[in-house]
Amino acid sequence: MKLMRYGEAGREKPAVLDASGKIRDVSSLVSDYDPSTLGDDLVSRLRQVEEQPEVTGTPRIGPVLARVGTIWCIGLNYVDHAKEAGMAVPTEPVVFSKAASTVCGPNDSIPITAAMAKLDWEVELGVVIGRRAFRVTEAQALEHVFGYTVVNDVSERAWQLERGGQWMKGKSHPNFCPLGPWLVTGDEIPDLQSLQLWLDVNAVPKQRGSTSSMIFPVAKLVSYLSQFARLEPGDLICTGTPPGVGAGMKPPQFLRSGDVVTLGIELLGKQKQRVESA
Amino acid sequence: MKLMRYGEAGREKPAVLDASGKIRDVSSLVSDYDPSTLGDDLVSRLRQVEEQPEVTGTPRIGPVLARVGTIWCIGLNYVDHAKEAGMAVPTEPVVFSKAASTVCGPNDSIPITAAMAKLDWEVELGVVIGRRAFRVTEAQALEHVFGYTVVNDVSERAWQLERGGQWMKGKSHPNFCPLGPWLVTGDEIPDLQSLQLWLDVNAVPKQRGSTSSMIFPVAKLVSYLSQFARLEPGDLICTGTPPGVGAGMKPPQFLRSGDVVTLGIELLGKQKQRVESA
Repeated sequence: MKLMRYGEAGREKPAVLDASGKIRDVSSLVSDYDPSTLGDDLVSRLRQVEEQPEVTGTPRIGPVLARVGTIWCIGLNYVDHAKEAGMAVPTEPVVFSKAASTVCGPNDSIPITAAMAKLDWEVELGVVIGRRAFRVTEAQALEHVFGYTVVNDVSERAWQLERGGQWMKGKSHPNFCPLGPWLVTGDEIPDLQSLQLWLDVNAVPKQRGSTSSMIFPVAKLVSYLSQFARLEPGDLICTGTPPGVGAGMKPPQFLRSGDVVTLGIELLGKQKQRVESA
Repeated sequence: MKLMRYGEAGREKPAVLDASGKIRDVSSLVSDYDPSTLGDDLVSRLRQVEEQPEVTGTPRIGPVLARVGTIWCIGLNYVDHAKEAGMAVPTEPVVFSKAASTVCGPNDSIPITAAMAKLDWEVELGVVIGRRAFRVTEAQALEHVFGYTVVNDVSERAWQLERGGQWMKGKSHPNFCPLGPWLVTGDEIPDLQSLQLWLDVNAVPKQRGSTSSMIFPVAKLVSYLSQFARLEPGDLICTGTPPGVGAGMKPPQFLRSGDVVTLGIELLGKQKQRVESA
C-alpha cells in the first residue's frame, strides 16, 4: 500500500495512492498518519480505499508523516560515499540526528540563506518505524518497520563540519528533510536491498546507487539501533547516502538559488525541490 | 508557577504545585502538558489552581512533559567540565541529540545492563521551549522559553565515545533523561544565570556548579540554535553539565547496580534515581 498526505502545509489530510494511480482521501478512516495511528491495524483500517473520495487536481503533497518522532541518521553507510567524504569506512554504524522541524513535503523548496556556504544533497532510503523496537534481532527487525520512503537528507556542510564537533547543526534547518511522496509498505518491495537510488541537480546526474551497496542493511540498522535505544512508532531512520554528494566532487559543488534537485528511489517515487533564497 | 505530572508511567495527569506545597490535579483545565498545550495561554488556563482537587499520598512523579519534541543537548558548556573531559573549550556551542524515548520521571530507576561499561551522570539545567523560535536574538530568546527543569543527561561513555564518531548512541537508552520534578516558569527565577547545581552518588558529592559558569548562557543558546534550526514548543534543551562527572575522575568512576544518584538545581527541585540491573 502507498500512503501519502496532501494539502496545505500543516493541514495535510491522509490519503492512499490506489492501484490505478488515483489519490483517495482516507480522512474518514484515519485522522492522520502519526505516531498514534501507525500501529499494526492501520493497513487493515485502509482496506476500503477504492470506496473513498478521489482527490482531483494537483494538490501539494505533504510529508508522509505528521509529528515525526526521533530522526535517526546513519552516516557513511555506503563504502564509496565514505571514501568521497575522506572518512574511514565505519566498522559499526555512525549515528546522529536531525531536528523534527526539518520535515517537509517532497516537492517543497529548499531554503538557502546568506549564512549558508555549502548546501548539499543526499538521497536516502527512509525507514518509518511502526511498532516499538527494543533489543530486536536482525531476523525480527523488519516486523517493526511500517514502511519505506524517499528522504533528501539536505545538509549544510560548513555548519555540519566546521562549527564545532557534532554534525546535527548542519542537518537541522527547516525543510532539510523532504519526506515522500509515499510511505510504501514492505509487501510492495520484493527486495529491499536492491533498490536503485538516484539524484540529479538541474537534470545533471549526481548520485547513482543501490541499496545493495549498503555497508549495514536495513534489518541490521534497526536491530543495531534497538540495542542502544528504544525505537518508537513514528521514528524515522535515514539510512545513509550513496556516493555523489557535492562535497565529494573535485572541486566541490554546492547548491545555489534557482537550482532544481530531483531524486528518487525505485518503487518509492520521486521528489523535486527548487532551491530558493530565504 | 510549578507544573508537574503525576501517576503511572504513560498515564500521567497534569498538576501544579501550589504556593502551600500541595499538588493540585489540573486535568479539568488542560488535557496534558505537551507540544499542543505549551502555548502562551497555558499559565492563564491554570489560574484557578487553588480550587482544583488536591492529590494526596505519594504518587509517582512523571516527566514534566508528554511527547517531548527534539532534545537538543549542549556539550562542554562549562569550562571546567571541558577540561576534565580532556576536550578543548568550545568557541561555539557543541550540539548533539538524545532520543525522545529517553524521557522518564525524575525518580525512576536508571537501568544498567551487562552491555554497559561506563555509565555516567550529568546534572543539567533543562529549558523547555513554549513558543516557536527561529532566528531570534539573545534579547528575544527567553520569551520563547516556557520554563525550566532539572535533567540528568545520563550517558554511557563507552557507547558515546568508543563506538564510532557521534555521541548520540551513548545518550539514548530508555530512562537516560529523567526530567523534573517541576517545570518552573521564568517569573519564579530571579537570576537564571546564578543557579546552584549539585549531584551526589550514594550521598557523596560529585558535581557542584553554578549556571554562572556557563560558557554560553541560556539566552545565547536559544538564539544560537535558532539560527540553524526552528525550535518548536515541546523541544527540550539540555544546557550542559558542570564538572564532576565520573569519566573525569582519576581514576574514572562509573555507576553500578544499587547506586543511588541524587541531584538538583536551586529553585527547580531535586531528583533521586536508583541504578538497577535491567
